[in-house]
Amino acid sequence: MFTRNAVKGAPLVVTREAVEAGGVRAVVANSGNANAATGGRGVEDACAMQRLAAEVLGIEADEVAVASTGVIGERLPMDRISAGIRAAAGELGGDGFAESILTTDTRVKEAVARVEIEGRTVTVGGTAKGSGMIHPNMGTMLAFLATDAAVEKECLEETLRRATDRTFNRVTVDGDTSPSDMALLMANGAAGNEPLGLDSPDFPAFAGAVESVARKLAKEIARDGEGATRLVEVVVEGAADEDGAAALAKSIVGSNLVKAAVFGEDANWGRVITAMGYSGVLFDPEGVDLWFGPIKVFSGGEPVAHEEAEANATLAGGEVRITAHLSEGEASATAWGCDLSYEYVRINGSYRT
Amino acid sequence: MFTRNAVKGAPLVVTREAVEAGGVRAVVANSGNANAATGGRGVEDACAMQRLAAEVLGIEADEVAVASTGVIGERLPMDRISAGIRAAAGELGGDGFAESILTTDTRVKEAVARVEIEGRTVTVGGTAKGSGMIHPNMGTMLAFLATDAAVEKECLEETLRRATDRTFNRVTVDGDTSPSDMALLMANGAAGNEPLGLDSPDFPAFAGAVESVARKLAKEIARDGEGATRLVEVVVEGAADEDGAAALAKSIVGSNLVKAAVFGEDANWGRVITAMGYSGVLFDPEGVDLWFGPIKVFSGGEPVAHEEAEANATLAGGEVRITAHLSEGEASATAWGCDLSYEYVRINGSYRT
Repeated sequence: MFTRNAVKGAPLVVTREAVEAGGVRAVVANSGNANAATGGRGVEDACAMQRLAAEVLGIEADEVAVASTGVIGERLPMDRISAGIRAAAGELGGDGFAESILTTDTRVKEAVARVEIEGRTVTVGGTAKGSGMIHPNMGTMLAFLATDAAVEKECLEETLRRATDRTFNRVTVDGDTSPSDMALLMANGAAGNEPLGLDSPDFPAFAGAVESVARKLAKEIARDGEGATRLVEVVVEGAADEDGAAALAKSIVGSNLVKAAVFGEDANWGRVITAMGYSGVLFDPEGVDLWFGPIKVFSGGEPVAHEEAEANATLAGGEVRITAHLSEGEASATAWGCDLSYEYVRINGSYRT
Repeated sequence: MFTRNAVKGAPLVVTREAVEAGGVRAVVANSGNANAATGGRGVEDACAMQRLAAEVLGIEADEVAVASTGVIGERLPMDRISAGIRAAAGELGGDGFAESILTTDTRVKEAVARVEIEGRTVTVGGTAKGSGMIHPNMGTMLAFLATDAAVEKECLEETLRRATDRTFNRVTVDGDTSPSDMALLMANGAAGNEPLGLDSPDFPAFAGAVESVARKLAKEIARDGEGATRLVEVVVEGAADEDGAAALAKSIVGSNLVKAAVFGEDANWGRVITAMGYSGVLFDPEGVDLWFGPIKVFSGGEPVAHEEAEANATLAGGEVRITAHLSEGEASATAWGCDLSYEYVRINGSYRT
């Protein structure tokens, strides 16, 4: 899965070709420089990274995925990249990868799930980075998932597409979609099962394991949003369809005013119903119930009497939950984000220079 | 013109009926409470405001427009509203109106334009408020324009619609569209001209005067955005059509990362091309030229060598101009916004409580 931004970083051009060619077996990634908006020379640099990584690993160039994250619009320092690839090749199998891809992230993001297939335990593991320019977006979101299950290629793609729609595409830190976003899912078949297809009886269990790993990583990205002091989870229920529920949830969690209110521990539900109103989804405002944590604050088009201090207190912890229940249907969706703090402004007013 | 938010404040319901009924002659407005998300009782309160204003002015209730701006989800304190309307009726003709509608605004916003019609000088004047929840949006955007020209009703509506599309709808402070946004244009015909229609030879001159007043007010709203230290003007040229040009300009000026970079005086053009990329408008990134002020920073898909300090210096003043030239066609559009500062977070982390 690659960014939906019309401007795509050079590594995505190169990696997409590798994925289409068939068998990606390795990932080479750098942080600090996104190699995006760098034109034809940027693509040449990404290819050089790919070739060098293949060489030190003894595999083909088109078996290597390339990812870059960091500042946009500067050429890669290829001497440092080359020296780094040679050095990293001597440290494979260590746990440095998850840490090496961080930029403004403050912590490593890893997740694992295990599931039984044909009586064998299959593992899905993943790591991700992402902190700013997340909608999903730069600082950039990168996610790398791997499994020892044997999986048909088409099935692998579809599994990642569905998981991405419900997880990485439901995270917003600042509404900016980066040119470098990428999520990869690799399967090496070491578990020895019959290759999974979309019709395999075990496919739902495998897809569930992938989605659970992706969801955990997505939440960690939101929790570690630039300047974030809180993870915000927004649940929309009773919508006409899942796309609409997701659009409503993302509109709430993406609102600067909602985010600033959460930072200020102000259960300002007027900003929540307002964000729903401009989401582009049609609904009857009179049929909406709103909760901050367990405190109902709005129903039937009017405020619900409640102790304001109790509603504000639901914003005091590290995890905040806002729920909206509509009267349109049975669909639901969850989106994740974070609050908007002084620190976000500081980081992004001084990130590059 | 009323908000596009699906959640509409009670005053908009009442005012829309008055406008449709025909002849609005007066406006009664309050700040501090938006009377939005207040259900049927909110509509009753807005009607009571309307009736009381009509009574003290000696006109019909449906000749009064009602506007409210401020906190969402609380009932109006009708005793204070009633006392205020009676007191204000004794001060008509003063210049208190522009000041009385402010909330988090830091200054009054007024504009005037004059134009010759049939040898007579016709005046268009206006005042507006708006500082946060502007996309255009709440703290709320309210704009009231008036002219002494005689204008047919249909022509008056179309004039305001066109001017709004090119001015108020091109301002973004924080991407949040309020339930209370409203722009009114009233004409009393005191200038004595033949009523203007869409086909009148003088219509373009009149429409130009209205647009210039609306543009000035829109820019003042952006300049006075919550926490703003700079007005940001984004010009997109060479687009396939005006809607696309406007979408690109609004995407740039609305990006939190661009806004934070401007606040930090960092001419981070990578964030500009990125914001264009996720605007939803299709274009060839290789055909884009970007400027900060007069400094060209990106062309042909690659960075243009420039002194970074010179580009950063274009962000040091009170007005910032970013220009993008595409290779798609001849259309252009301008959008206005402001930077994202610590003060925005402070205001909105503590606005209500």
